[in-house]
Amino acid sequence: MSLEPGPSRPLLYQQLAAQIAAAIDSGALRAGDRAPSVRKLSVQHGVSVSTVLQAYAHLEAEGLLRARPQSGHYVRGRPSLPEIRPSRTPREASPVSVSSLVAGLYSDAHQDAAVQFGAAYTPFSFLPTRRLGRLLAAAARDSEHAGAEYDLPPGNPALRRQVARRSVEWGCALAPEDFIVTCGATEALNLCLLAVARRGDTVAIESPTFFGILQMLEAHGLRALEIPCDAREGMRLDALEAGLKRHRIAAVIAVPNFSNPLGSVMSDASKEKLVELLARRDVPLIEDDTFGDLHHGPTRPKVAKAFDRRGLVLLCGSFSKTLAPGYRVGWVAAGKFQERVQLLKFSQNIATTTLQQRALAAFLEAGGYDRHLRTLRRRLAGAMNAVAAGVERHFPPGTRMTQPTGGTVLWLELPGRANALTLYERALAEGISLAPGPIFSPRGRYERFVRLSTALEWSDEVDAALARVGAIARDLV
Amino acid sequence: MSLEPGPSRPLLYQQLAAQIAAAIDSGALRAGDRAPSVRKLSVQHGVSVSTVLQAYAHLEAEGLLRARPQSGHYVRGRPSLPEIRPSRTPREASPVSVSSLVAGLYSDAHQDAAVQFGAAYTPFSFLPTRRLGRLLAAAARDSEHAGAEYDLPPGNPALRRQVARRSVEWGCALAPEDFIVTCGATEALNLCLLAVARRGDTVAIESPTFFGILQMLEAHGLRALEIPCDAREGMRLDALEAGLKRHRIAAVIAVPNFSNPLGSVMSDASKEKLVELLARRDVPLIEDDTFGDLHHGPTRPKVAKAFDRRGLVLLCGSFSKTLAPGYRVGWVAAGKFQERVQLLKFSQNIATTTLQQRALAAFLEAGGYDRHLRTLRRRLAGAMNAVAAGVERHFPPGTRMTQPTGGTVLWLELPGRANALTLYERALAEGISLAPGPIFSPRGRYERFVRLSTALEWSDEVDAALARVGAIARDLV
Repeated sequence: MSLEPGPSRPLLYQQLAAQIAAAIDSGALRAGDRAPSVRKLSVQHGVSVSTVLQAYAHLEAEGLLRARPQSGHYVRGRPSLPEIRPSRTPREASPVSVSSLVAGLYSDAHQDAAVQFGAAYTPFSFLPTRRLGRLLAAAARDSEHAGAEYDLPPGNPALRRQVARRSVEWGCALAPEDFIVTCGATEALNLCLLAVARRGDTVAIESPTFFGILQMLEAHGLRALEIPCDAREGMRLDALEAGLKRHRIAAVIAVPNFSNPLGSVMSDASKEKLVELLARRDVPLIEDDTFGDLHHGPTRPKVAKAFDRRGLVLLCGSFSKTLAPGYRVGWVAAGKFQERVQLLKFSQNIATTTLQQRALAAFLEAGGYDRHLRTLRRRLAGAMNAVAAGVERHFPPGTRMTQPTGGTVLWLELPGRANALTLYERALAEGISLAPGPIFSPRGRYERFVRLSTALEWSDEVDAALARVGAIARDLV
Repeated sequence: MSLEPGPSRPLLYQQLAAQIAAAIDSGALRAGDRAPSVRKLSVQHGVSVSTVLQAYAHLEAEGLLRARPQSGHYVRGRPSLPEIRPSRTPREASPVSVSSLVAGLYSDAHQDAAVQFGAAYTPFSFLPTRRLGRLLAAAARDSEHAGAEYDLPPGNPALRRQVARRSVEWGCALAPEDFIVTCGATEALNLCLLAVARRGDTVAIESPTFFGILQMLEAHGLRALEIPCDAREGMRLDALEAGLKRHRIAAVIAVPNFSNPLGSVMSDASKEKLVELLARRDVPLIEDDTFGDLHHGPTRPKVAKAFDRRGLVLLCGSFSKTLAPGYRVGWVAAGKFQERVQLLKFSQNIATTTLQQRALAAFLEAGGYDRHLRTLRRRLAGAMNAVAAGVERHFPPGTRMTQPTGGTVLWLELPGRANALTLYERALAEGISLAPGPIFSPRGRYERFVRLSTALEWSDEVDAALARVGAIARDLV
């Protein structure tokens, strides 16, 4: 079948990808087969090499192909594990208490684990740490006060200009003055909570939700109303609407792009509906877009903020996953709460460090961030595919797994009566970390779930560790 | 009169200082006179040059001498302005609302003022910014991940070791594991408040108190009970005790060493009494020691934490006044709240920046911090003396002023009906900033007070600016 360009047809790479996917579905290409070489396909279909590469990247993101360095692309086949079912949640809000559980996760034993499926930190080998280090050293050397001076809120203008420039890609053209620089997205989210909610208030969250968000709610004495989520589409808006009718909600925290731990992405239509639903009730939306740039497919999903007409969306982001976690630089575009958030930023810790802001601004100004992101995404997609395939090989039958199209985590449901905390402890005893389900719930639910970070370099050692975790899981089942 | 060493007698430098003070009081040395040269006094009294220098430093701290670079010491005479009277406070606690006023203080107009008596930032010319910059650049260059990695709470071990080593001088030998590194003392104080108080709780504070502390109370929805203070001795313990009987107090925030804006220092006996008073009632003391190292006299005052037997004192400190504000590095030793504060630190912004912690650890390890502090203190003492003398020359009769023995601020009470906010606005219109009294009170009191930062390099321009502020004040009176 030939590929045809045309205004009303899918792009060439999409047509090509669809053909290969059909070959896999039909069994013409089977799991483990080597896919046709890029050159061969290019000649065969009369398309450019880059079109073939784009098609392959797309199929990798879809989980159908797996790239092996120096060796080409191999068919993974349609995932054999069933998908995660939509979550169910209690009707009532509850106080949050996860700190002691999470503290365990950051204990020395955990940090020292030889293989880390626990914390979702991007491997340093995937990050331009040397170049950033040189830029930071230059900033320390060349600036008048060597970075000893404050860069008071809203923060470094050059950096805010660069972030604003990137916001066009997110579907909303924000201005430099729309941003406040923060100590990572974590601080951004905390400032938003301080700005819009008071102790005792109820905040609606995704279920399951990132334990960092639960810790914040706990620190500020906020109650959590868990909203059920679809593993692909994220927060269920009908359930949210019902929750809004039953409860006085001070704010909603959502991770519309590559939520953590589900990896779900809300469609643009759902994002728009979410923003409108909340706007009608004057409820602020705190949007965490930390993983937005880590799409495995070719397209960067929009942010919900793109549909914000009333300034009710507080958009938080960060460079911690894409450039340098230890730099502690993130941002918030807080809409109508901008002035309040800026005052709060000052009152919490005066300012974000001066030199890290300068180094990141210099990095972005120099260009090459998009090229870095492309490489980073390819490596993260490859790593996720490898881990997913490993889970399929090693975990007990009946295990369910998400099929994210971005981000760096997989969410697994173990079959039978397997307990995630037991799995966590037994794996840790063997030097392997993972994140047990109960820390993703304000009341310790998700006992049979685990989150695996796939932000790692795949290796035989990692495969062996995954096999060990799988064996323990089989034993527990 | 000869100087005599002996176990029961004051130290030689104290005897010498007392003799010179007596000469000033008797009129034998008058304001503006050049004091005897160091060499001459040394020969005359048969004491070492360093003993004379110590005596002169002591007299500088007392405000009796003023050092002029390259020129020797000059007599300032006993301050001619009357001292600030003890503050009086309302009996009841109140919510706090200062943010909008403080925002004005950090507006562009304020930042751009040609002469800054407003924010109390140590001049960069007094700080080893170049050396720190080189250490930071080296850390970025030489470390494995160039500082892109987290330095998770409690923070850099080498830095905590250095801070612990210094704590011996504060009167308490704390261990490295007693400390958590924070984004400056401001974050440390916020974490302590989050750890021990909940929205709606009442916190006892000094009156007047640093506006940064008021902003924190406002951000966390805490009520303030103002405790009257003596301009020299700080918080009045009888009043605090009465307050503790009348109110349920969740915590006390105090700045026992060189409080801001009063510059008061509690005696060791008062510190001990304060700690015991609170221990009997199980009330935590949040101690801010930001200015502790900036004593103008020879002795570093102890911290209240030195008298803590029950782990109820949460001691906060920082390098922002002594080394590099923009590095955003401080610490807290939170006693029995240590674990809770460490979890909160993680939940608020994960970690303090990696490279700044390393650079400061390297600076302290290399030695020379004490030498730097001696020079810094001498310059800050000189600057404060100069500003104080300028106020005496230029401000209207009846103006009252503190006589701090350390720190970097003077607190003035204007006579008659002069309004501080008017003075602030008219001075700002002429490019001169200062901090108006009402921002140091939760309900906008201290309308006739202003705080002048003396953390500056004295110059004819500064003197002219002070003359302008004085002229406006005369006009308002």
